[in-house]
Amino acid sequence: MDWQQIFASRMMRMKASEIRELLKLLDQPDIISFAGGIPDPALFPTAAYRDAMTAALSDTTAPMALQYSVSEGYRPLRDWIAAEMARTGVACTADNILITSGSQQALDYLGKLMLSPGDTALVNWPTYLGALGAFNAYEPRYDRLNGNAGPAEYAAAAAADGGRVKFAYLSADFGNPTGETLDRAGRDALIDLADELDIAIIEDNAYQRLRYDGEPIPPILALEIARKGSIEDCRTIYCGSFSKSLAPGLRVGWVCAATSVINRLVLMKQASDLHSSTINQVATAHVADAVFESHVTGLRDIYGRRRDLMLAALNREMPEGVSWTRPEGGMFVWLTLPERMDGATLLAQALADEKVAFVPGRAFFADGSNGNTARLSFTLYDADMMDAGIARLGRAIRNYRAE
Amino acid sequence: MDWQQIFASRMMRMKASEIRELLKLLDQPDIISFAGGIPDPALFPTAAYRDAMTAALSDTTAPMALQYSVSEGYRPLRDWIAAEMARTGVACTADNILITSGSQQALDYLGKLMLSPGDTALVNWPTYLGALGAFNAYEPRYDRLNGNAGPAEYAAAAAADGGRVKFAYLSADFGNPTGETLDRAGRDALIDLADELDIAIIEDNAYQRLRYDGEPIPPILALEIARKGSIEDCRTIYCGSFSKSLAPGLRVGWVCAATSVINRLVLMKQASDLHSSTINQVATAHVADAVFESHVTGLRDIYGRRRDLMLAALNREMPEGVSWTRPEGGMFVWLTLPERMDGATLLAQALADEKVAFVPGRAFFADGSNGNTARLSFTLYDADMMDAGIARLGRAIRNYRAE
Repeated sequence: MDWQQIFASRMMRMKASEIRELLKLLDQPDIISFAGGIPDPALFPTAAYRDAMTAALSDTTAPMALQYSVSEGYRPLRDWIAAEMARTGVACTADNILITSGSQQALDYLGKLMLSPGDTALVNWPTYLGALGAFNAYEPRYDRLNGNAGPAEYAAAAAADGGRVKFAYLSADFGNPTGETLDRAGRDALIDLADELDIAIIEDNAYQRLRYDGEPIPPILALEIARKGSIEDCRTIYCGSFSKSLAPGLRVGWVCAATSVINRLVLMKQASDLHSSTINQVATAHVADAVFESHVTGLRDIYGRRRDLMLAALNREMPEGVSWTRPEGGMFVWLTLPERMDGATLLAQALADEKVAFVPGRAFFADGSNGNTARLSFTLYDADMMDAGIARLGRAIRNYRAE
Repeated sequence: MDWQQIFASRMMRMKASEIRELLKLLDQPDIISFAGGIPDPALFPTAAYRDAMTAALSDTTAPMALQYSVSEGYRPLRDWIAAEMARTGVACTADNILITSGSQQALDYLGKLMLSPGDTALVNWPTYLGALGAFNAYEPRYDRLNGNAGPAEYAAAAAADGGRVKFAYLSADFGNPTGETLDRAGRDALIDLADELDIAIIEDNAYQRLRYDGEPIPPILALEIARKGSIEDCRTIYCGSFSKSLAPGLRVGWVCAATSVINRLVLMKQASDLHSSTINQVATAHVADAVFESHVTGLRDIYGRRRDLMLAALNREMPEGVSWTRPEGGMFVWLTLPERMDGATLLAQALADEKVAFVPGRAFFADGSNGNTARLSFTLYDADMMDAGIARLGRAIRNYRAE
């Protein structure tokens, strides 16, 4: 049977990601891996989840926790999230919150909501490759958000390709992959640009609570609400997640936006998977109530120290011509190698010669450019492994052989 | 802000379902509702889930159960499902299994995999409205599977609309909404049709294990494997679910198909939500190992008795001119009212006058025809409520007033 002639045209754009193929290598026990963008599983609030699941499965609550539930999500969890959003300046109610299966699902839904084939999405160069993966299914073209274009140029380029700019996507706080932060002036300028183009802003804020130093900057949605008076008048769609602050395995994230957006996403949720796991929403509400603040405080201490360890090791071990970001939070440091080097070639050599892994940077660029880059995650290792791993990486770079 | 000009064209097809709006009415305590297609929550294997969650969250397993996991799903659960599929004649391995967030997600993915705008999906008249909801996002046209057309007519009609027939979708065992079963000859004829048209078959078998009498008929995929020798040569894509056999609140279902299909769906899963909840997959594997067979045996006893109660009550209470199906399994009886009646009008009157609910049938027809139909679920009530509810429904029908 020739499935190619049965598959939809959108499948042409869906390819295996480098991260996915890489994760298969990480089963080898002697590899030091800076590749996975995963939280340290030793830090999960396991006891709190045990308590939460026991409570959710009591004789009185189990019939609800194991049953179908509404597409918008479990009301007590939506209330908790709305209160948490309000603390960062986003005044909203549960009606502005949709629970999704992780923020990855929010990105899929937002692509589905807005992109017709040929429409334009503005993304940073580089950007989260999972966002490109989600959007690709809806066959957009990409234009560069952090370049030098103005609104007229964006609009003209989109129209020339037969579509329209629909949204700008970014992660403003310590985003994947660079770990960099968009400052207050940059956020204000982005709202101006979006107003001018009459497009949405997708603010992916999965790492927001993992700030290790520097002053918090209000979310773009908070700045827009301050400017326009109400979330109902805002074009920013905020995506949040418990994957980095509590645990990713339950797949609980959310979208916070104007109700006119949320209501359409609820219909989409119903058509695509009815609702996110009821019991996981009930359990997450328990855990968030019980330990959220103390838990993220603990994470910030540990991950902040590991970031410092990585930056110090890079300082010692990196040869001339290599530069890197110094993130104030999140999970990642972004490496720029000398232009003659290719990250994928380096990875093959680093794995074979030094047993150290990272993610080559090319996949984070919508146009596949900038092969001389790499993403390092600092979440998993303390001093010994961190120092050894970065020393290995330094040797692999010094011994780089062009292919 | 005018969101309409930002939304994609596919959003025109995504509307609130009648079932969803109806569910909001069911909070009133004195309503007898045959509307929801939900399992009886009193029958969930709660103790088994408690044991399973305790095991999944032990100190040794919690770091895995709370962590990110692979997009194809938890291997022990995929192995369990492959063995279960083999017992019904579907010889396969874990490589033929993708775990999805309920079988609703499988339907969404299969629409996304195969449908370009204007392509044709063959569906029964009536069919599961959640399938229409999932497929609608990919802008297909529909043609009637259980009509009188032959392959040449289907192909010509699809081509005239600028697309191609991509698949036939059906639920062959006691499907939602009619509860009817496609016999062996009908299954063989469907494979012939699909071979002729060179299209896929989507076999949605969520109710398979809920057979109350009659002999099991092999799944379409089993018949096709028997004909062609290997699942790898088959065009049937089987969708299964634990939602009816164990509990829906964890959102665990699966697709079983040729690896060339599974591999593409794994990419789609990665791009759309990374993976289904790790802990729920671990827990489901525990529960399935521990109680699956004994639990579904118990469900069959109870639901089979409730089906008998509903059929007996319909026999007593329905006026002349009303007919209904006599399903061998599943959850639903399908009512055909006199042609002058409209199910939605009847529902409004039945709720107001008699406090009894059902789902009007029009939404189950891709063309919105056959308004004189209704779906009744028999899963929730034993004798007293069943008899009272069907008596109320009989009165509402007898007192029907055209609007």
